[in-house]
Amino acid sequence: MSRPLLQLALDHTDLDAALLTAAQLKKHVDIIEAGTILCISEGLTAVRKLRELCPEHIIVADLKVADAGETLAKQAFSAGANWMTVICAAPIATVARAQDVASQYGGEIQIELFGRWTLDDAQAWRNLGVKQAIYHRGRDAQASGQNWSQDDLKTMSALTELGIELSITGGITPADLPLFKDISVQAFIAGRALSDAENPAAIATAFHQQIDAIWGKRA
Amino acid sequence: MSRPLLQLALDHTDLDAALLTAAQLKKHVDIIEAGTILCISEGLTAVRKLRELCPEHIIVADLKVADAGETLAKQAFSAGANWMTVICAAPIATVARAQDVASQYGGEIQIELFGRWTLDDAQAWRNLGVKQAIYHRGRDAQASGQNWSQDDLKTMSALTELGIELSITGGITPADLPLFKDISVQAFIAGRALSDAENPAAIATAFHQQIDAIWGKRA
Repeated sequence: MSRPLLQLALDHTDLDAALLTAAQLKKHVDIIEAGTILCISEGLTAVRKLRELCPEHIIVADLKVADAGETLAKQAFSAGANWMTVICAAPIATVARAQDVASQYGGEIQIELFGRWTLDDAQAWRNLGVKQAIYHRGRDAQASGQNWSQDDLKTMSALTELGIELSITGGITPADLPLFKDISVQAFIAGRALSDAENPAAIATAFHQQIDAIWGKRA
Repeated sequence: MSRPLLQLALDHTDLDAALLTAAQLKKHVDIIEAGTILCISEGLTAVRKLRELCPEHIIVADLKVADAGETLAKQAFSAGANWMTVICAAPIATVARAQDVASQYGGEIQIELFGRWTLDDAQAWRNLGVKQAIYHRGRDAQASGQNWSQDDLKTMSALTELGIELSITGGITPADLPLFKDISVQAFIAGRALSDAENPAAIATAFHQQIDAIWGKRA
């Protein structure tokens, strides 16, 4: 099982504020995400500017695509994204078209798991070549007190068995990480836990130390 | 049952092209939609510019919100949108927060019906005060040959009975309109059928004539 990466989610409504956070934190994280709020507020210029600022990082365009998979994937990957999110509620044809474009660009699709979906859906995504999914407590679900549960962990294990690597998000802290030691984790995603911290570098270090302790040090 | 309106969906990747189409067609339509592709490509500047160009029209921000309902609703309504879309897969807490913000701005939330949802979900949306939903064949589903079916019409009738007004979209033409005569239709949404037409005004007129013929002339 590969060592999880640390992903910074930028959910600013203002591009300059997002770029400032990215500039401050980029050396502490492996992946930088242009969050949905940022992409909707500022458009794909956000991805283009992050690509300029962070030429070596993996950049995620968190568009939660529900339709028009081909057009949006072309827009996102040509703007410089490596990975793009598609919502699980999207028709399978949308996933297929987005995946085709991703392959052309050497990029990857991540399925955003929200609401109702089944392991049969997950198998169908795998059959199209999709290898990643994002598992989370939504911001609003989290604010209403919904916590990580044994059901979450069972579902994550089932996805791991299908060969799907998960990026895990939703108010996650370094202390939560041992919960996920048997899961195939691509990345832990932290947004405000990093960007709103008094000392974001210290939080990032705490994430990396926990990852090292559980999954072993970076090769 | 009120007379359906005609909505122009702008799914351009370029804002200037979208504004040109809006300027040409605004006098032929009742509602102008900043489509997901446009909002993602250009950000909410698209909504702000459409509001400037069309001060009297209903403007829809088709964001297909899946999370962060409060932040995105504030962004959309403060940019000048009257209505904002939320995807049916969004947690109910997201719908609730978006609906709260919509009420504060005198706006409305439209639930975008994609993938799996149930009439119990629809009742839950109604209980929050949501009055509108968008029913469609997705662009990709449509391209794969999926057509309007009796099942679609039955589901639309059930939503009508719950008090939900539908905006109907997905490659719709004036010839399709009689299918929906017993449905509570808020709007018919046309995108490329209008913007890519040789004579868009003639297509818009054909829509209005069919609406007049089926639902009666505008008061």
